[in-house]
Formats: sequence, structure tokens, C-alpha cells
Amino acid sequence: MSHLTKDKPKLLARVRRLKGQIEAIERAIEAEKDCGAILQLVASVRGATTGLTQELIEDHLRHHVILIEDETGREKGGAELASVLRTYLK
Amino acid sequence: MSHLTKDKPKLLARVRRLKGQIEAIERAIEAEKDCGAILQLVASVRGATTGLTQELIEDHLRHHVILIEDETGREKGGAELASVLRTYLK
Amino acid sequence: MSHLTKDKPKLLARVRRLKGQIEAIERAIEAEKDCGAILQLVASVRGATTGLTQELIEDHLRHHVILIEDETGREKGGAELASVLRTYLK
Amino acid sequence: MSHLTKDKPKLLARVRRLKGQIEAIERAIEAEKDCGAILQLVASVRGATTGLTQELIEDHLRHHVILIEDETGREKGGAELASVLRTYLK
Repeated sequence: MSHLTKDKPKLLARVRRLKGQIEAIERAIEAEKDCGAILQLVASVRGATTGLTQELIEDHLRHHVILIEDETGREKGGAELASVLRTYLK
Repeated sequence: MSHLTKDKPKLLARVRRLKGQIEAIERAIEAEKDCGAILQLVASVRGATTGLTQELIEDHLRHHVILIEDETGREKGGAELASVLRTYLK
Repeated sequence: MSHLTKDKPKLLARVRRLKGQIEAIERAIEAEKDCGAILQLVASVRGATTGLTQELIEDHLRHHVILIEDETGREKGGAELASVLRTYLK
Repeated sequence: MSHLTKDKPKLLARVRRLKGQIEAIERAIEAEKDCGAILQLVASVRGATTGLTQELIEDHLRHHVILIEDETGREKGGAELASVLRTYLK
């Protein structure tokens, strides 16, 4: 069983909460709510996205690098991780 | 007409694109896609959220600080902006 | 007296602490210290830089936008702020 | 030869450039330069720090996880990396 299969319910719950936060922003813009409040909602989406990212990165590091027996496999998993980190460490 | 009313269609389109990206992550997890690919999808959501934030921050700076005639009004708009920036500049 | 003149001692102390942290990294690399420890030192420099940035941004918002009587002056201060924020909200 | 020994000259040059940038901020504050210019100098320090971090993280991933033969060693290197990433993905 891949690590994603095992963690699937937990990850899906996290993504659906994130979708709920986006829908809250959509409603707030439709209702022309105060833009300071909308800014706070967007900040919370960024925080939730960062949390999801941290979880996926640590899972990837574990299951596609640390627990991989052969070095070639680890090189592939490591290269994927490095390329994602570059988008975060701009 | 408040600045949000004027920008409403553009902002809503942006938020709905962001929701579409989250739904793409949901489908990828359900289909147990490769976690490297899912990480890239999440990175693109973070980029889109940052872009939305930049736009809202600049609108807020303009319409709630720069264009406000009285200093007390500017203090209020400026305080809201500073508190949102603190969540970003951690 | 400009706001920088008033805050000069405090800002200079903060920048010199940051320089001290960089010199600690320099010594750690020269002594070939464990790279995990060096990574933590670099992370603390990034935190200190972010703290200095937050202080300068809030000062700039206050003294070059909020407290400026004429709108043209506020436009200039606001444009400078927006361009700095873009480097942070990539 | 540890990877830090091999990369030492390059890393030291990078850290000394960063120190030079901090000293430029110190001089600008002493000379009470325009705070917009100082903000840009601080933004460039943050960029340089992020670049140094990316290099150290990729080196760490390579030399303390990917190239490590035994899993226990990889667990240690991976745990160090995860803890540094948490300071960046706040």
C-alpha cells in the first residue's frame, strides 16, 4: 500500500477544509464584505496551504528518499523534493 | 461604489480558479497520483494564493490608506494592513 | 527630525546583531561544523532579517503614507511600499 | 573529505558577500539614507539568505540522506532537514 493510500482520508479531509476556506472568501467577496476581513481569510488559506505542503514534503522525504533502499531511487525522490523546495524558497 | 464592487468580477474569477486548483489536488489524491505531482499542484495553489494576496494588499493600501483624506481613517486602514503583513512576514 | 534619525540607535543595534549572526555562520563554516547546525544558524538570520523588514515596513507605512498630508506624497510612499512587498510576496 | 570541506571556499565567499550587504545597510542607516532604499537593501539580504539556505538544504539532502547507505543514518539526516524546513514553511 503506497503512503498516499494510507494517508488518503486524512489528506482529503485537509484539502476539503482548504476548499471550504476558499468558498468562504468567495462568499465574502460576493457579499462585498470589508476587505480587511477578506485579507485575513486569504492569509488563513495561505497558512493552511503551507501546513499541507509541510505534511506532503515530510511524507515525500520519508517514503521516497529515507526508506528507499537503492541510491538511484533516492536520487529520483531527492530531485523531486529539491525542485518543489525551490518554488518555496524563492 | 466600493473598490471591491468595482473589482468584484475579476476577484471572483481569481478565487474560482484557485478553487479549481484545490479540486485538482482532491482528484489527484483520490486517484493516488504520484506524490511528487501532488506537491507541484500544492505549490501552484500557494503561488496563486500569494498573487491574490498581493492584489488585495495593494488595493487595501490604495483605497483604505492612500486615498483617505483624514488621518484617523488612514490610521485604521494602515493598522489592518500591518496586521495582515505580520502573518506574511513570519 | 526624520523617523530614521529618531530610530537610528535601535535600528543600528538590530543590524549589528544580524552582522554578528552572519559572522557566527562564517566561523562555523571555517571550523567545518556540522551542516545541520549551520542550517539552523542560517534559519535564524532569515528570521532576524524578516523581523528587521517588518519594522522598516511598518515605519515606512506610518511615516511615508499614513502621516503624509498630501495625496501625491502618499502615492510616492505607497508605491515604494508596494514594490518592496512584491519582493516578499513572491 | 566532508562535503563542507569541499565547498568551503564557495560557501565562505557567499557568506562574506552577505556580510558586505549587511554592512551596506549599516552605512545607509548611519547616513540616514531614504528608508525606501534601505528597505530594498534589506530585501536583497533576504534574497541572498534564501539562496544560501537553498544551497545548504540541497547539500544536506544529498550528503546526509541520499548518499547515506544505512537507513538509521538517513533517518537522522532527514530529521535535521525536516526541522529546518519547518522554520521556512511557517
